[in-house]
Amino acid sequence: LAITIDAEDHPADIAHTLSEMDPGEAWKLLCALPVSVQADVFGYIEPELQAETIEHMTRPQLTALITEMDADDRADVYNRLSEEQQEMILPALAHVERENIRKLASYEEGTAGAIMTSDYATLKPDMTAKEAIAQLRLEAPDKETIYRTYVLKDDRELIGTVRLADLILAPPSRKVSALMDDDPVFVHVDDDQESVARTVAKYDILAVPVVDAQHHLLGIVTHDDAIDALEEEATEDFLRLGAHGDIDESVRSAGIFTLYRARIVWLVLLVFGNLLSGFGIAYFEDTIAAHIALIFFLPLLIASGGNAGAQAATLMVRALATGEVRSRDWGRMLGREFLVAAALGITMALAVSGIGVFRGGTDIAMVVASSMIIIVLVGSLIGMSLPFVLSRLNLDPATASAPLVTSIADATGVVIYFTIASVVLFG
Amino acid sequence: LAITIDAEDHPADIAHTLSEMDPGEAWKLLCALPVSVQADVFGYIEPELQAETIEHMTRPQLTALITEMDADDRADVYNRLSEEQQEMILPALAHVERENIRKLASYEEGTAGAIMTSDYATLKPDMTAKEAIAQLRLEAPDKETIYRTYVLKDDRELIGTVRLADLILAPPSRKVSALMDDDPVFVHVDDDQESVARTVAKYDILAVPVVDAQHHLLGIVTHDDAIDALEEEATEDFLRLGAHGDIDESVRSAGIFTLYRARIVWLVLLVFGNLLSGFGIAYFEDTIAAHIALIFFLPLLIASGGNAGAQAATLMVRALATGEVRSRDWGRMLGREFLVAAALGITMALAVSGIGVFRGGTDIAMVVASSMIIIVLVGSLIGMSLPFVLSRLNLDPATASAPLVTSIADATGVVIYFTIASVVLFG
Ligand SMILES: [Mg+2]
Ligand SMILES: [Mg+2]
Ligand SMILES: [Mg+2]
Ligand SMILES: [Mg+2]
Ligand SMILES: [Mg+2]
Ligand SMILES: [Mg+2]
Ligand SMILES: [Mg+2]
Ligand SMILES: [Mg+2]
Ligand SMILES: [Mg+2]
Ligand SMILES: [Mg+2]
Ligand SMILES: [Mg+2]
Ligand SMILES: [Mg+2]
Ligand SMILES: [Mg+2]
Repeated sequence: LAITIDAEDHPADIAHTLSEMDPGEAWKLLCALPVSVQADVFGYIEPELQAETIEHMTRPQLTALITEMDADDRADVYNRLSEEQQEMILPALAHVERENIRKLASYEEGTAGAIMTSDYATLKPDMTAKEAIAQLRLEAPDKETIYRTYVLKDDRELIGTVRLADLILAPPSRKVSALMDDDPVFVHVDDDQESVARTVAKYDILAVPVVDAQHHLLGIVTHDDAIDALEEEATEDFLRLGAHGDIDESVRSAGIFTLYRARIVWLVLLVFGNLLSGFGIAYFEDTIAAHIALIFFLPLLIASGGNAGAQAATLMVRALATGEVRSRDWGRMLGREFLVAAALGITMALAVSGIGVFRGGTDIAMVVASSMIIIVLVGSLIGMSLPFVLSRLNLDPATASAPLVTSIADATGVVIYFTIASVVLFG
Repeated sequence: LAITIDAEDHPADIAHTLSEMDPGEAWKLLCALPVSVQADVFGYIEPELQAETIEHMTRPQLTALITEMDADDRADVYNRLSEEQQEMILPALAHVERENIRKLASYEEGTAGAIMTSDYATLKPDMTAKEAIAQLRLEAPDKETIYRTYVLKDDRELIGTVRLADLILAPPSRKVSALMDDDPVFVHVDDDQESVARTVAKYDILAVPVVDAQHHLLGIVTHDDAIDALEEEATEDFLRLGAHGDIDESVRSAGIFTLYRARIVWLVLLVFGNLLSGFGIAYFEDTIAAHIALIFFLPLLIASGGNAGAQAATLMVRALATGEVRSRDWGRMLGREFLVAAALGITMALAVSGIGVFRGGTDIAMVVASSMIIIVLVGSLIGMSLPFVLSRLNLDPATASAPLVTSIADATGVVIYFTIASVVLFG
């Protein structure tokens, strides 16, 4: 059954069809389409597959494709080429494209610069609405959006933005400077992509202008790339919360070694935490030997501290990521967490004290119940505070993963439980 | 120090300023602004605060504000009003607004219908470009976007979409039907909001049209609301992965009882899993008493299984949510997970066998090392599979939380460890 491609289909759908195929075959189909379609489709293909597909292109084919691509997407492609490939295509490109790629490809990953595009339309403040529309008519086909244009002084300083709708509705002789919003939202070129994307989301804008320290316009970040940045940052946080390392490839096609490497680091690091629990238990061996019934409750008690801690950590990591909670809210959150955790601990203590009486008598029940309260309280406060501590140390709050919190809670739980047991049962 | 508000500021910023204030004071400031600004600002205010602010409005004030708001946002406000408040304002509204609110407010939360707006512009296929632009000029101020308009037959069947840019660039006499994309992306009104938002993200579109079963246009979901939906769904998944219940309020202001209720359910449910571990230990009490050194390794072994399982579960939950992995990929993922987990288990076994020899001799070391391999393998396969099982049962894969996986891994780990110990040490 031969796969056919319809050039009228959405490039995202064509890209999806091609991604199921062998890269050589995919390129055979793709290169039969008009180069503008090739370029659009290529922007939707996954990085690994882009690299493999490029291997099948001739130099003129690659040059034509790169020239047609959106400025932001082609800079990404360029950054993923081998040095030989880069040196091969640069001289083949026109001067303007070459400089554009060099510039856009030079910004650090994860910053506004790395996700911005230079495909925006600009206007001068003293143009009339009619002149502005005429200019946009000429420029339109090459721009990512002409729905919001950027008004620049001669030195490229950003002084306003104007909506196409306002240009169309205005009297033709009205000046752009009278139609523009002269206090537009903007971001700095080295701002974190997550905060850039949240700015787009907060103000519900199509694109946010990106400026340098002198407020000169360098690019814009469009709504679609803002969504992608947010999704990428969310995925990063998900994996970190699961103590899973970053993986740059797609999950579906990631290899054994990639996945192994992404997981082994935290697994081994956590061994040290878990050994602490072992040492704690070894330290209390006599207590345990004298009251073997204590062991029955050990998994329950330490797990409950870890669970409560993981809940609290997860809530705070997400709230810090979305900006709902700030680093400085720690104190306020701590007070509330104390009350919530105390209530949780007391409920859990009531739930297990019955089982405590049944399996070990009233003394054991008392030890188990009071340990539960303190362990849940301590576990919660640790889990809740860890993201704040990490954030203050300029580390990623999402490092406060469930496994890390669980390990810490396990070790403290062992100490709390057997200390209380020693005091109550031998005191 | 009196807080002042500049009507020129972005409504999102005004909303932020007001949200730090007492609702009565906030309304005093807000109601001094033009009603169109009031309406924009109100759309950015958090639900709880909206409700409190409404308490301070007179009926005419509320009616004027509601009439001015974006159709989607005011339907949300309406849904949060008390029944008395709803009955109070409906008669005060014009017929068109009343019907519009009733309709938009009737769709189930979490569906396309609940996040769509009716503020879109439509055209007829046999209009000319010039006629179309003239009509958009008239309609523009009331619409969320005129950059993409929707072409309908007389019965409201959606037959295409057309870009404003194409209307402007076309010869004035060209027909809309010749300019439109006649195969536009669309979603169904009861599609899940997450898949709707992913459609917007996938195709990089400003808005996606929402249709009923007869392909009649009912509304559009705009890019900004798609971002919000994705963020909301991500937050839901984060909390579920941390075994934390949903909270409808903002994290910053959520009360003690709200947070307690969101956490106690899973904490208590997990008690049963953790009791299983206790019973496992109790069952092997004799083995433990005879080789008390075994206990030292218990936390490490069971935690390692839980950690590996939590890693695998997190990766799969996120990949299922983004659509990178589908339900049917389970088999393929399982094979790969087996190899990855085996490699992880062997590495971990090597890491701990030295400590095993040191603390318990070669026999114990052998038990610990072989237990580690099997526990990490089993924990990983459970953690990796649980999201798929849940998904096949039409439950949320994100229910495969780190605490749940850890609890299951703990219980199986206890059984695996002491079974191997019994066999090796007494066999
Ligand atoms: Mg880039
Ligand atoms: Mg928004
Ligand atoms: Mg993009
Ligand atoms: Mg882009
Ligand atoms: Mg980041
Ligand atoms: Mg982050
Ligand atoms: Mg101002
Ligand atoms: Mg709604
Ligand atoms: Mg996209
Ligand atoms: Mg909205
Ligand atoms: Mg909206
Ligand atoms: Mg959902
Ligand atoms: Mg979900």
